[in-house]
Amino acid sequence: MEKIGICEEPKFRSKDYIDPPAVPFVDASELRKWSFYRAIITEFISTLLFLYIAIGTVVGASRNADCAGVGILGIAWAFGGMIFVLVYCTAGISGGHINPAVTFGLLLARKISLTRSLAYMVAQCLGAICGAGLVKEFQHSFYMDHGGGANAVAPGYSTGTGLAAEIIGTFVLMFTVFSATDPKRKARDSHVPVLAPLPIGFAVFVVHCATIPITGTGINPARSFGAAVIFNRSKSWDDHWIFWVGPFLGAALAAAYHQYILRANPIKSMRSFGNGSNHT
Amino acid sequence: MEKIGICEEPKFRSKDYIDPPAVPFVDASELRKWSFYRAIITEFISTLLFLYIAIGTVVGASRNADCAGVGILGIAWAFGGMIFVLVYCTAGISGGHINPAVTFGLLLARKISLTRSLAYMVAQCLGAICGAGLVKEFQHSFYMDHGGGANAVAPGYSTGTGLAAEIIGTFVLMFTVFSATDPKRKARDSHVPVLAPLPIGFAVFVVHCATIPITGTGINPARSFGAAVIFNRSKSWDDHWIFWVGPFLGAALAAAYHQYILRANPIKSMRSFGNGSNHT
Amino acid sequence: MEKIGICEEPKFRSKDYIDPPAVPFVDASELRKWSFYRAIITEFISTLLFLYIAIGTVVGASRNADCAGVGILGIAWAFGGMIFVLVYCTAGISGGHINPAVTFGLLLARKISLTRSLAYMVAQCLGAICGAGLVKEFQHSFYMDHGGGANAVAPGYSTGTGLAAEIIGTFVLMFTVFSATDPKRKARDSHVPVLAPLPIGFAVFVVHCATIPITGTGINPARSFGAAVIFNRSKSWDDHWIFWVGPFLGAALAAAYHQYILRANPIKSMRSFGNGSNHT
Amino acid sequence: MEKIGICEEPKFRSKDYIDPPAVPFVDASELRKWSFYRAIITEFISTLLFLYIAIGTVVGASRNADCAGVGILGIAWAFGGMIFVLVYCTAGISGGHINPAVTFGLLLARKISLTRSLAYMVAQCLGAICGAGLVKEFQHSFYMDHGGGANAVAPGYSTGTGLAAEIIGTFVLMFTVFSATDPKRKARDSHVPVLAPLPIGFAVFVVHCATIPITGTGINPARSFGAAVIFNRSKSWDDHWIFWVGPFLGAALAAAYHQYILRANPIKSMRSFGNGSNHT
Repeated sequence: MEKIGICEEPKFRSKDYIDPPAVPFVDASELRKWSFYRAIITEFISTLLFLYIAIGTVVGASRNADCAGVGILGIAWAFGGMIFVLVYCTAGISGGHINPAVTFGLLLARKISLTRSLAYMVAQCLGAICGAGLVKEFQHSFYMDHGGGANAVAPGYSTGTGLAAEIIGTFVLMFTVFSATDPKRKARDSHVPVLAPLPIGFAVFVVHCATIPITGTGINPARSFGAAVIFNRSKSWDDHWIFWVGPFLGAALAAAYHQYILRANPIKSMRSFGNGSNHT
Repeated sequence: MEKIGICEEPKFRSKDYIDPPAVPFVDASELRKWSFYRAIITEFISTLLFLYIAIGTVVGASRNADCAGVGILGIAWAFGGMIFVLVYCTAGISGGHINPAVTFGLLLARKISLTRSLAYMVAQCLGAICGAGLVKEFQHSFYMDHGGGANAVAPGYSTGTGLAAEIIGTFVLMFTVFSATDPKRKARDSHVPVLAPLPIGFAVFVVHCATIPITGTGINPARSFGAAVIFNRSKSWDDHWIFWVGPFLGAALAAAYHQYILRANPIKSMRSFGNGSNHT
Repeated sequence: MEKIGICEEPKFRSKDYIDPPAVPFVDASELRKWSFYRAIITEFISTLLFLYIAIGTVVGASRNADCAGVGILGIAWAFGGMIFVLVYCTAGISGGHINPAVTFGLLLARKISLTRSLAYMVAQCLGAICGAGLVKEFQHSFYMDHGGGANAVAPGYSTGTGLAAEIIGTFVLMFTVFSATDPKRKARDSHVPVLAPLPIGFAVFVVHCATIPITGTGINPARSFGAAVIFNRSKSWDDHWIFWVGPFLGAALAAAYHQYILRANPIKSMRSFGNGSNHT
Repeated sequence: MEKIGICEEPKFRSKDYIDPPAVPFVDASELRKWSFYRAIITEFISTLLFLYIAIGTVVGASRNADCAGVGILGIAWAFGGMIFVLVYCTAGISGGHINPAVTFGLLLARKISLTRSLAYMVAQCLGAICGAGLVKEFQHSFYMDHGGGANAVAPGYSTGTGLAAEIIGTFVLMFTVFSATDPKRKARDSHVPVLAPLPIGFAVFVVHCATIPITGTGINPARSFGAAVIFNRSKSWDDHWIFWVGPFLGAALAAAYHQYILRANPIKSMRSFGNGSNHT
């Protein structure tokens, strides 16, 4: 995020921002840096805390059928609020992904290397298992009775609907992540990295408002995987592929939308009809 | 607030900001730019996502009568929160209108051209139809049972009350939009464009808190139109004119209030009684 | 926090901010400026919109006893959220008081003149009456049945408790207003005026969470007065003095706390035991 | 933003921020400054107001079993929202701790002296007692019936679970506090101190969403102590040690995580495999 050392030639600059060069797929040098391992530890701990708070809220809210819990709205807030807090805290250290779909989208956009992506995803999944495990350990009797926060397509919805809900939900999240971290925006206003966590948290919140009745809302394969491993009933495994395929497809669509429509890098010259110089 | 001690050169700059020139009604040159079409695509996609999340929340919330859904408060948050996210993401690309009434208000204030306005409105309405269509496709059985998120004047209220509620609600929204994008404010503090999405989202939220019981809250003709087209029962078409006339009138009133009272451009000299120089 | 390495000229600047001079009680010159009348119109319109949204939410929420309305929490959000939006929109025009107690507190702190204070208070009360009147006009049948959003001490609480709740609640609000507009803070970080509306809105929100069960939460004499005038039953007039005396006392206490403890202007030299120079 | 005028030696600086020197354990000079006593008064008043609003919301919400109160979600918002407001208001005066665990964590990180820490903790506990006392005074009949907002391990949970919930909850809060006040972050973006209160408030909010069903959520020994003193029944004293040991352990873990993993001061050279110079 903070690519210091931007020393550039000011002559042929027709735009006020700098696209950072694409990150190589394999960057052996980063494996020798403490900052690489620190980032992986951060992703592990953050995903652990995310699942602990979010699944804990789900289980606690379900106990109180008579309006005494925080309710579905409280669950949506816990997911969105915790993402806001964690992205704020860790954006400067690991980028604050806490979600394999976000990591995948940023890999497609060539913002992080393949090696780092894979390491992040493993750390996120392990962290999610530990976080969900803590909730089960703490509230054992309630945990199994209330579905353990595992994602599944709700009765009355088809598998295709569940998959589509995951795709669109992750698209909303990933579109917000790309918008918030766009170098074009950063050039205009340098404190966006600080402000970005809030809309990202709200994106998670509103997607939960809309799709908790359909799938329980995954849009985060680590969150779905961790809950499924700990809950470990056939119900949570049957639909499990949806919560990997859907988020990854949604993230890929958002990456394509951002790169080919909003940023219009490759097709800029083609699509511009006349004067291509003063695009904004 | 910041009036004290501002020592300025009073000769050729009587104010510290620059009013951008009024945008021409027809700007043929913008039709040749990719940024124009990119903005229209953005308005289409954003309004689609807005309806998908917001109407999806309405239908999902209605299913659970026994406090298990996100409730009316959750619906208000989904509308306001999604507007916050989308305005944040698209303000730099299309202006982030997502609402024909906002486009109309900015046209009246001469901030965008007539050609762009019309293209935006068509894109918003098409996006809204697609977004509401997705919700119907996903939750068919529940969708028709629960009104499909279509706007209508609730029993016990007159048509005039519904119209007035739409006018005032859109006034609150449009007043916030004008305040947030005022070049005078920008001069003083350059990061308002980044911060503006939050109060705009909150304006949508509080108006929903107040008027969901009256009209379901439109304050956005595209949102009302998309839901009406997809729901397509006489109930949603009978009152439909209210959700175009009301928001457009409210936006026009806000434009007038902002231009003639708050900015006081045309009548400044007239109203100032004595020393007209050091107005702020 | 930022004390390290700041190399300043220590001779004639012992602090890095400038206290603006106290505003005179009567400032005849401001009566000749359009900005004065614009500010009064703004206070009128803002308080009207505040009451319209807030009281409308109260009446609408009460209609749905079976969890279908936005509930007490939604009412608290509508009050707090609307104050956030209005302070954001009008802070640069009138200061964004929307509350005679805030005006009174700023008068005591010598931030605005007596003439301006009185004009603001009249505008706020008239705006509040119009806003509450609109709600009654729109939802007549429901309005009278549900108390019209008028403030009163709830059964089970003494008058003294109601008064104390109003004093402390207004203290919290006014303390936040003073903190947000402190010139010392502004010197350190110039965009506080933009960020200030959010904590002010949250202060209104949390006070409503705590004291709606006791008095319905006034902490704003114009809000209580407007609702009482329109509801106009003995119930709303008997306790009405509480909602003027309480907020004014709370604002005065906050002004004293801010001036004599936090800023420590008058008693600085007295209280400092030894080296009085490097206070912060 | 504030980099201008910082007169520093650019030779031996390999990083773009300055770690402030560790604060001495005993700093006799601060005892002679008014700012020291002002900070203690601020902590006292802030903790008083925090308990007044938060415990008042708990008691008020409990009265309305039939969905008419703000509910558990409203309680979580009152705690988190009030922390946001108070940290915003007092961060520049006392640091805005309002919590002995936060004070303890910052003492371990050598950000404040031992003398100041002890004075803060005493002020926080006294303030909490006064705040809870006000609530009892105001709502006496309801207060004792509804547990007085005192923390205790809920039926169905073991003592170990309660302790672990307090440890992890405080870890989340303290991790956010450290992230928000990190001098490394400040160097990159100077207005973090202004923005920091929001994620801190949200951290408190989400922890309450997750652990109100388990312990009522302490994560603040002063809050637990004040409520226990005023409620004063064996129920609130039996588990009371949990609400000191848990938060202090959680704060210590967060301090260790921040210092040894995220900042990696002491073990930097050890862990870096190769080129240790260009870490970020």
